[in-house]
Amino acid sequence: MEKPRLPVPPMKWDAWGDPDRVTQLSDAQLGMVHDLLKVSAADLDPVPYEDVRLRPSQLSGADLDAIASVVGAEHVSTADADRLPRAGGKSTLDLLRRKNRDEQDAPDAVVVPGTDDEVLALLTLGGQRGIAVVPFGGGTSVVGGLDPVRAQFGAVISLDLRRFAALESLDEVNQEAVLGAGLLAPEAERLLAERGFELGHYPQSFKYATIGGFAATRSSGQDSAGYGRFDDLVRGMRVVTPIGVVDVGAAAPKNAAGPDLRQLFLGSEGAFGVITSVRVRVHPLPETKTYEAWTFPDFTTGAAALRAVEQAGTGPTVLRLSDEVETTLNLATVDEAGGDAPAPGGCLAITAFEGPAGLVAARHEATRAVLLAMGGTSLGDAPARHWAERRFDGPYLRDPLLAEGALVETLETATSWSNLATLKQAVTETIQTKFTEFDSVSLVLCHISHVYDTGASLYFTIIGAQRGDAIEQWTKIKAAVNDTLVGNGGTITHHHAVGADHRNWMTDEIGDVGVEILRAVKAKVDPAGILNPGKLIP
Amino acid sequence: MEKPRLPVPPMKWDAWGDPDRVTQLSDAQLGMVHDLLKVSAADLDPVPYEDVRLRPSQLSGADLDAIASVVGAEHVSTADADRLPRAGGKSTLDLLRRKNRDEQDAPDAVVVPGTDDEVLALLTLGGQRGIAVVPFGGGTSVVGGLDPVRAQFGAVISLDLRRFAALESLDEVNQEAVLGAGLLAPEAERLLAERGFELGHYPQSFKYATIGGFAATRSSGQDSAGYGRFDDLVRGMRVVTPIGVVDVGAAAPKNAAGPDLRQLFLGSEGAFGVITSVRVRVHPLPETKTYEAWTFPDFTTGAAALRAVEQAGTGPTVLRLSDEVETTLNLATVDEAGGDAPAPGGCLAITAFEGPAGLVAARHEATRAVLLAMGGTSLGDAPARHWAERRFDGPYLRDPLLAEGALVETLETATSWSNLATLKQAVTETIQTKFTEFDSVSLVLCHISHVYDTGASLYFTIIGAQRGDAIEQWTKIKAAVNDTLVGNGGTITHHHAVGADHRNWMTDEIGDVGVEILRAVKAKVDPAGILNPGKLIP
Repeated sequence: MEKPRLPVPPMKWDAWGDPDRVTQLSDAQLGMVHDLLKVSAADLDPVPYEDVRLRPSQLSGADLDAIASVVGAEHVSTADADRLPRAGGKSTLDLLRRKNRDEQDAPDAVVVPGTDDEVLALLTLGGQRGIAVVPFGGGTSVVGGLDPVRAQFGAVISLDLRRFAALESLDEVNQEAVLGAGLLAPEAERLLAERGFELGHYPQSFKYATIGGFAATRSSGQDSAGYGRFDDLVRGMRVVTPIGVVDVGAAAPKNAAGPDLRQLFLGSEGAFGVITSVRVRVHPLPETKTYEAWTFPDFTTGAAALRAVEQAGTGPTVLRLSDEVETTLNLATVDEAGGDAPAPGGCLAITAFEGPAGLVAARHEATRAVLLAMGGTSLGDAPARHWAERRFDGPYLRDPLLAEGALVETLETATSWSNLATLKQAVTETIQTKFTEFDSVSLVLCHISHVYDTGASLYFTIIGAQRGDAIEQWTKIKAAVNDTLVGNGGTITHHHAVGADHRNWMTDEIGDVGVEILRAVKAKVDPAGILNPGKLIP
Repeated sequence: MEKPRLPVPPMKWDAWGDPDRVTQLSDAQLGMVHDLLKVSAADLDPVPYEDVRLRPSQLSGADLDAIASVVGAEHVSTADADRLPRAGGKSTLDLLRRKNRDEQDAPDAVVVPGTDDEVLALLTLGGQRGIAVVPFGGGTSVVGGLDPVRAQFGAVISLDLRRFAALESLDEVNQEAVLGAGLLAPEAERLLAERGFELGHYPQSFKYATIGGFAATRSSGQDSAGYGRFDDLVRGMRVVTPIGVVDVGAAAPKNAAGPDLRQLFLGSEGAFGVITSVRVRVHPLPETKTYEAWTFPDFTTGAAALRAVEQAGTGPTVLRLSDEVETTLNLATVDEAGGDAPAPGGCLAITAFEGPAGLVAARHEATRAVLLAMGGTSLGDAPARHWAERRFDGPYLRDPLLAEGALVETLETATSWSNLATLKQAVTETIQTKFTEFDSVSLVLCHISHVYDTGASLYFTIIGAQRGDAIEQWTKIKAAVNDTLVGNGGTITHHHAVGADHRNWMTDEIGDVGVEILRAVKAKVDPAGILNPGKLIP
């Protein structure tokens, strides 16, 4: 494969994360895979980079000339080395597809515009020439949000937003920053930190995700208890739609001037327009950070304790709870970190507090009081600090596990507090039943990662054995889980978004009238239907 | 006028509030009107109730039979005594219109459905027969949201939601209640308090407003610093649209399943559907309430202090600041209340704290520390308690002032902190300039009633002299203020909503693309266009 002509996205082309990082399974992990799952190597013969074959670009010379006339020839490429790393996101399905020796699908070109006007011209051109457009930020989608779907069109381009990478402004009085949509989150935090501020949005994808992607997918960060979800942080957005640029949320933090259109573009996943900049609430870099880990005798007790904290509003920045299985499987790493290990069968909870010293102390104390009253036992700060140090590392384990023949993926949902245990049980049973149908045992780990006054999220990590066509296998299991979610009072996605993978369950989620509304908005702002087809809207 | 056939709305037909309450101006207030405004009685000869003439109902016998076949004959009326109290809201324009001896406009019938199916049937019938529908809750709109606009239709009905008045459910674990949209706020609080819970939403209209109205207009309450705006409290809504019933927010408190459709129906002002029930976050009745009033040397210093509190997140339940003029005019009542009066020229701030005793003490202490550091001087609790006792009384003063020939109204906006002083000055100058054109001095009082991390609201009370046709006079002044708001970075409405009165400025507020989106949603869910025509969408 020839060299790329454009800057490449920062992750491995066929796996999660840092291209220089190699993750090896421990003997214990290997033992688990071999002994429990009875697999020793994947039924796969992954294609090496050099041998990947992509579907040839379907764009004509005239199409490419037209695109180049908008962005300049140096900002468009049909080279396989540019198209391959934008061929999809980082779901397990994406990674399995990248291992395929057959011809792989990919966008027909990568285009890197530099201004709103160029984006608008590209959308106009796409409508005229029948070219679909997939906005591309960090490439971290795990729901098929970047699939190069052409729908009724002859071609699809990946519109890479990396040139929208400025800290456009920072108002220290209002504690508001305007960030380019293509800014990688770590770079945004670096630019803000130089001025003494922080955004504080740390999803597991933090190191590779972009500001625009956070907005387009309603991302939630691990500090959401303290700083809110990304949609809580957004004050305004500039969005280029095919019918013009819209500046939502311009006048005031909140108003009563009709529906809040910010909330229509948040979560629009590239289907309504291309978000090019985002105005966000920022806060001063925290003066103090404190940590404390807790153990609870069981998940139900721990969940009730988290609920009590959130409903009282004692103000932790991080508040999470692993179930018994996840806690047990993480025990080894907790031991490494020092501190007391949770009792066998117990559940590990993590709390963290950030801000001015006085408030942090008060919030920590108030939270401790609730957790103690609700049956928690403190494990000190070490396990919580250990969690914080490794908070972005989880996804690295998946790739060597896939190579060993395990089928590994995560999925997530949310529901009301009173329905949490029921939903958790239903999802776990569905996964285990489906894997049994594939003649495999399975491990289902779960944690609460985001809490609200009226409910919480559930995040599942699933490990089973690959059997036959792993793409087909996982697609069937995932479908069964989605059916279980909609049948048991859970949302189809708390923070991974809809993309292609959850799209068929959107009618269950929002009803016929809801779908009709999304279609009506889509038809208005994207009359040709070129924006990210096959995602979000059924 | 004959007796009403249906239950009457709880307010006076031609004035604010309790029909049994008579508000008289003090000598000081009368003196101010006579000496400063040089008026001594309105240039009005208000029509007595008995002599009000309404436009005759335009509904045919066949129309009325069709309506009666849906709701039952006992739930529909064309009697003037039923139509008059639903002829409009309680803006100054509404009150002036009620004083008119000419034929007044009013809905052609009042209809009181009892179920979602009946509402849907009425909307279907309205589309078939060309009858517009204005949803009616408590009748407290001050932006023309209830104007009986017929648009292209031959008739308009007032759809009174009073029969949707149940506490449908209360989940004490989730701290969520489902409230009928027609429940008056005090009744909702009474039903919740019986179970130990509170909604905590206290706008100035509290005593007469409904739960559905709060949702439809994005209401903000005086405790918004602690409990949030009404849109923050809503977890879900059942909305009857002409194309079907939609249950938004059903699955989870928050999700990433595309745009948040709750935020499309919140603030939809009856134009997208009829909200029939609302699921809200409730909290346990507060264990403790503490109050403290403060004085600041000037508005700028006080505003900076409120900003510091909100950005630090110290957690007051109430946080407000009156400017110098409002503080001075309220001095007399502060004296009554005991406690130290603010220094002349100073600005009065109110804080209150509610919740569990320990948290209240910590929040109060943390807030005190910030206010002291930012130049505040404590006035003790008495002025704040006095404010709390009289928090719903303000609107009662308007009616006797109008009768004396003063022109009195309130309006409100919001902007970023850094733009607050500029916007306040611009609005004040516009009002004073416009009154000067009408050969009148004017008093402009202002306070910050709602604070956010990145900005705040401004609430203006305006007192000038009526000159000639007061409706025409105020319409011109209000238009100039709206132009000033959109030209100076303010929203056209922070919490009063759009209605008919702000509609012409919606394009300035949300842009052409924003308006196109609202029109597209409207065309989809209300293809005949019968829902509250002439409001919200330009």
